[in-house]
Amino acid sequence: MALIKLAKEVEARRQELLRRINMAPNGTATIVRMRSDLLRIIKECPHLVPIDADLKHLLSSWFNQGFLTLERINWETPAIVLEKLIEHETVHAMKGWADLRSRLAEDRRCFAFFHPALPNEPLIFVEVALAKGLATSIEPIIDEQREISNPSYADTAVFYSINNCQEGLYGISFGNFLIKQVVQELSHEFPHLQNYSTLSPMPGFCKWLKVVIDNPGKYAIPDDNLALLGQLHGNSWFQDSESVESLKPLLIGLAAYYLMHAKKGNEPLDRVARFHLRNGAILERINWLGDCSDNGIRKSAGMLVNYVYRPSLIISNHESYVKNHTLAISPNVAKLVPKTL
Amino acid sequence: MALIKLAKEVEARRQELLRRINMAPNGTATIVRMRSDLLRIIKECPHLVPIDADLKHLLSSWFNQGFLTLERINWETPAIVLEKLIEHETVHAMKGWADLRSRLAEDRRCFAFFHPALPNEPLIFVEVALAKGLATSIEPIIDEQREISNPSYADTAVFYSINNCQEGLYGISFGNFLIKQVVQELSHEFPHLQNYSTLSPMPGFCKWLKVVIDNPGKYAIPDDNLALLGQLHGNSWFQDSESVESLKPLLIGLAAYYLMHAKKGNEPLDRVARFHLRNGAILERINWLGDCSDNGIRKSAGMLVNYVYRPSLIISNHESYVKNHTLAISPNVAKLVPKTL
Amino acid sequence: MALIKLAKEVEARRQELLRRINMAPNGTATIVRMRSDLLRIIKECPHLVPIDADLKHLLSSWFNQGFLTLERINWETPAIVLEKLIEHETVHAMKGWADLRSRLAEDRRCFAFFHPALPNEPLIFVEVALAKGLATSIEPIIDEQREISNPSYADTAVFYSINNCQEGLYGISFGNFLIKQVVQELSHEFPHLQNYSTLSPMPGFCKWLKVVIDNPGKYAIPDDNLALLGQLHGNSWFQDSESVESLKPLLIGLAAYYLMHAKKGNEPLDRVARFHLRNGAILERINWLGDCSDNGIRKSAGMLVNYVYRPSLIISNHESYVKNHTLAISPNVAKLVPKTL
Amino acid sequence: MALIKLAKEVEARRQELLRRINMAPNGTATIVRMRSDLLRIIKECPHLVPIDADLKHLLSSWFNQGFLTLERINWETPAIVLEKLIEHETVHAMKGWADLRSRLAEDRRCFAFFHPALPNEPLIFVEVALAKGLATSIEPIIDEQREISNPSYADTAVFYSINNCQEGLYGISFGNFLIKQVVQELSHEFPHLQNYSTLSPMPGFCKWLKVVIDNPGKYAIPDDNLALLGQLHGNSWFQDSESVESLKPLLIGLAAYYLMHAKKGNEPLDRVARFHLRNGAILERINWLGDCSDNGIRKSAGMLVNYVYRPSLIISNHESYVKNHTLAISPNVAKLVPKTL
Ligand SMILES: [Mg+2]
Ligand SMILES: [Mg+2]
Repeated sequence: MALIKLAKEVEARRQELLRRINMAPNGTATIVRMRSDLLRIIKECPHLVPIDADLKHLLSSWFNQGFLTLERINWETPAIVLEKLIEHETVHAMKGWADLRSRLAEDRRCFAFFHPALPNEPLIFVEVALAKGLATSIEPIIDEQREISNPSYADTAVFYSINNCQEGLYGISFGNFLIKQVVQELSHEFPHLQNYSTLSPMPGFCKWLKVVIDNPGKYAIPDDNLALLGQLHGNSWFQDSESVESLKPLLIGLAAYYLMHAKKGNEPLDRVARFHLRNGAILERINWLGDCSDNGIRKSAGMLVNYVYRPSLIISNHESYVKNHTLAISPNVAKLVPKTL
Repeated sequence: MALIKLAKEVEARRQELLRRINMAPNGTATIVRMRSDLLRIIKECPHLVPIDADLKHLLSSWFNQGFLTLERINWETPAIVLEKLIEHETVHAMKGWADLRSRLAEDRRCFAFFHPALPNEPLIFVEVALAKGLATSIEPIIDEQREISNPSYADTAVFYSINNCQEGLYGISFGNFLIKQVVQELSHEFPHLQNYSTLSPMPGFCKWLKVVIDNPGKYAIPDDNLALLGQLHGNSWFQDSESVESLKPLLIGLAAYYLMHAKKGNEPLDRVARFHLRNGAILERINWLGDCSDNGIRKSAGMLVNYVYRPSLIISNHESYVKNHTLAISPNVAKLVPKTL
Repeated sequence: MALIKLAKEVEARRQELLRRINMAPNGTATIVRMRSDLLRIIKECPHLVPIDADLKHLLSSWFNQGFLTLERINWETPAIVLEKLIEHETVHAMKGWADLRSRLAEDRRCFAFFHPALPNEPLIFVEVALAKGLATSIEPIIDEQREISNPSYADTAVFYSINNCQEGLYGISFGNFLIKQVVQELSHEFPHLQNYSTLSPMPGFCKWLKVVIDNPGKYAIPDDNLALLGQLHGNSWFQDSESVESLKPLLIGLAAYYLMHAKKGNEPLDRVARFHLRNGAILERINWLGDCSDNGIRKSAGMLVNYVYRPSLIISNHESYVKNHTLAISPNVAKLVPKTL
Repeated sequence: MALIKLAKEVEARRQELLRRINMAPNGTATIVRMRSDLLRIIKECPHLVPIDADLKHLLSSWFNQGFLTLERINWETPAIVLEKLIEHETVHAMKGWADLRSRLAEDRRCFAFFHPALPNEPLIFVEVALAKGLATSIEPIIDEQREISNPSYADTAVFYSINNCQEGLYGISFGNFLIKQVVQELSHEFPHLQNYSTLSPMPGFCKWLKVVIDNPGKYAIPDDNLALLGQLHGNSWFQDSESVESLKPLLIGLAAYYLMHAKKGNEPLDRVARFHLRNGAILERINWLGDCSDNGIRKSAGMLVNYVYRPSLIISNHESYVKNHTLAISPNVAKLVPKTL
């Protein structure tokens, strides 16, 4: 009983204030925007951290998965929602309404989470291509001129882009639920689907690689390799077929090493790897020159990764990850890791 | 910063468990039902009180007014909702579907709060009669044979019944918001409305009166009055016109005294009086023999009270109540209080 | 071209008037009600027949199947719709809301057609029981106290009642589409269903039988049978087990004869038989004492008929019926027809 | 009775076929498309005219105003509907999604008619600007950079564009109903609106003017005027301020004459004038250089017309038009008509 009182005392009166704000018209939207504003200045204002803690505590509780609804996004979706997708697609940016329409065509699916108190505000959305076999590069997927195939012949669902839309909900995770529910939806609509795979960037790879190059001693990189990596300057090295040929095995090896061995605490350093491996996916394949956009070259050295969700293994993979920090790696990727960097 | 950590530690891990349960299908309904079950046994199991505290904390947060939607209830409402109104109407019980239909006729309004995670589950509902002048008794209002009048000629909205539907949300208050929002809705639909009044029971009056009678010395009741009050036995004294004549001034005076001076802490002892006066209403009138149903006679000695919501005074009344425990009483009621009981 | 002009001239100006009425608020409902009123008096006012012809022409066009929507009726349906079901169920009358609720339980389905211009107005509805095997009597189906079974184990859908709700749409047929679409809906929801059968009255049987009895010579009925049929007076003969024993073979034989050989033009005299056999169903079985309600005894001598819709045979049965007036009769029914009445 | 039979015989069996087609999935859409296809080739295939007559007869009946719903179009409308607006706006063409969004901003309204059998298919739509005073030119209205004003201060609703979306419904008129219903909607939302005015082209003016110029004798045009009109070549004469100065009075006079005196039968030759004057509007004002787009210069010599709908006069104007072919012309326009062309 004393604990009950202590908890009440300790819980900031600020939380009560926030609960009252929430009762006003558009209260929830206001609070989410408050946190978004707060996060923009928090680095300069460390004394605001406790306020953020309260905001995050409340928002986590209010945006509990049990209150979210998964909705299919297509060309019948209101424009006010669709424009937010265009705005928040940062993994593979959209060029406008025609690009969006192409990503919502018959051979594509798109789903988003919504909260009842934020109508017309997608929280997070995932774009899916229905294809034959695992996709190896992004360009054919987002090509507006591609031939639209009949999705009922597809055997693979490729999750090629996941984006959050609400800065004010930063750090409150919806992604794993989103993937699980979308897998369920898709398996209902397309009982013939056999594979659920991502086509994902390694957003931290080049940053990590720079550290490696700058500390050749620590990582014991052979001089030959260092010389080769010197060609990585700029954003167009991948167009020089000679460079590409010599860099390919080296970079793929480094990528495999990075995904498996570069850590933040006990978990993968790469936030995308961390997300999918923690969720129970398998690191299945690394695709050379899968994304030659500026963004793809600059962050992931043009590579894209397939993480595969095998429904029967998701739980056991997730548990091994959480208990023992074990990563589910396919043999094909495992053998790519070089003996020396 | 230390406070943040303390708050996290203190907050029961049970709350995290509840948040996880909420993510399962029908999670919210399950948790509400858990609390309903808990409340049924809590008197025998005081060690469960902390669990109830956690449940109430979470549910208060989740059922924040900002997440509720006010919906009009009428004959186009799904039967699954309507049957819950029949079931939970305890102030003036419904006799079945025909009675319900009559209470949803053109000259009546009904509104309820819903939460998006509990579809088809009204949380609380209010029944309103659109009438000419303040209603003084309940019988003509719920009479199925009454003549249906055109509501656009009404000048008064009579809130004649408010009921909660969710035992599991006991102690989480929605009523004041409900009244405010319904006043707003009605003033939009019927710009000619001039009065917003309740027709309310005094559910604790007879219980209090019994204490008074049993302690005549303490309350200094004259013997004559005591003798008169002796006629109150049973449920049919009100049919004896002689008794009625002699009891009327005495009981009305006692009722006025009860509503104004019988206290629980600094607030009115009667929970209905407490509710409306705290909300900013005015204790306007006491109606003799307004409710001669068994329930009405047994609890309120057949009287019904009008609490009037005057939009321009709601806030100031509420603030006086909260700051100084001042009750807003009309002069007509104030002068009913007898010098001696 | 001359024909176009002729058609325009011939088409009554009344139709244009009706088209204008339809543009007013609630126009369609008004026109449907006009026809309903008209039909009530048309026998006394034969000069109104051309007006009815125009009304029927327009309403047939407007209530074209392509404009109707099939909707599932259940306990989440608005009360304003449900009360119309209670009102218009004439095959097996409902005793009130509890009876209705029981007919909408988990092991039952109900569907209705709606027209967009008549919201909340079911045009026709069908009640379906999900069961194991063909139903032989109505009582266990509409028993409010029955045990609710899990519908996913059912192998048979029993269409036990079809009713029209709009007198003003008399003679405009929706029933065949209704059955086809409901079969489709049910086969989606319950892929294990193997049989689609009705449990139907023979509403014209007793009337026909009376004619037979009154003209024994014409129908060459043996005196013994005539004597037996003399016991049919009143509404409780079926409770006398001796009568029942002796009447059973005789009446079943007469029913089989009636359904197969009593004609109106080239089609069955019984309107229910005509309806289902024309739609492509098979006359599968005659059930003795399947409906001992007053209505059932009085019109159908207590018998109920199973017409079975076998999806693969519907079209060929329908075509044989339309082209050659062939009836699809199961061998078991065919052999019931007696040599002499 | 004979007439009933004749009507039945005369009515083409084709109509019955069409009614059956309508029962198939997407039947109505198919029939509308059939007519659209038919109209494209009908000039070359006069033997198809009777088929078109039947199609038009049926579609007129099915798309009776009583079956249409008026819906507000805004940025919450599904993209699949919005793209059809972009496609079918031919009066003042849209430059894309940003232009559309600007026309759906807070100071604008857009409404469309829909038919329940054609979901997501607007039949006709109208674009409205909420403004202060009658608009005199189109450019500020469709300027994407304009300042958005608060619509509650507007006193005038400007109907600046009406477009049909369904070629297959050619000749079936919805426009007059659309305007009436939109006036009603707007007067509800904005009780302060005082004027309902169009800003309309004269699509037949330049074509008529050419005939006049080519027949100077018949129309008795003074040589001076003929010489001036010689400057009208091309699409940029309006940018030459000297030409403009001298042409202005002449062209305005000709426009007034054209609208009032150029006839097709007893009605105005200009189809837009015919439409609004028949509906009960008043020809209020002619605006010089109101639309200098290519289209505006080429067809209407850059002028735009205000037709004003004064609710209290609509019916009497309409009746005078229908009975006596009287046009409601404001004095200011009437006096513009020159004595000689
Ligand atoms: Mg908390
Ligand atoms: Mg016709």
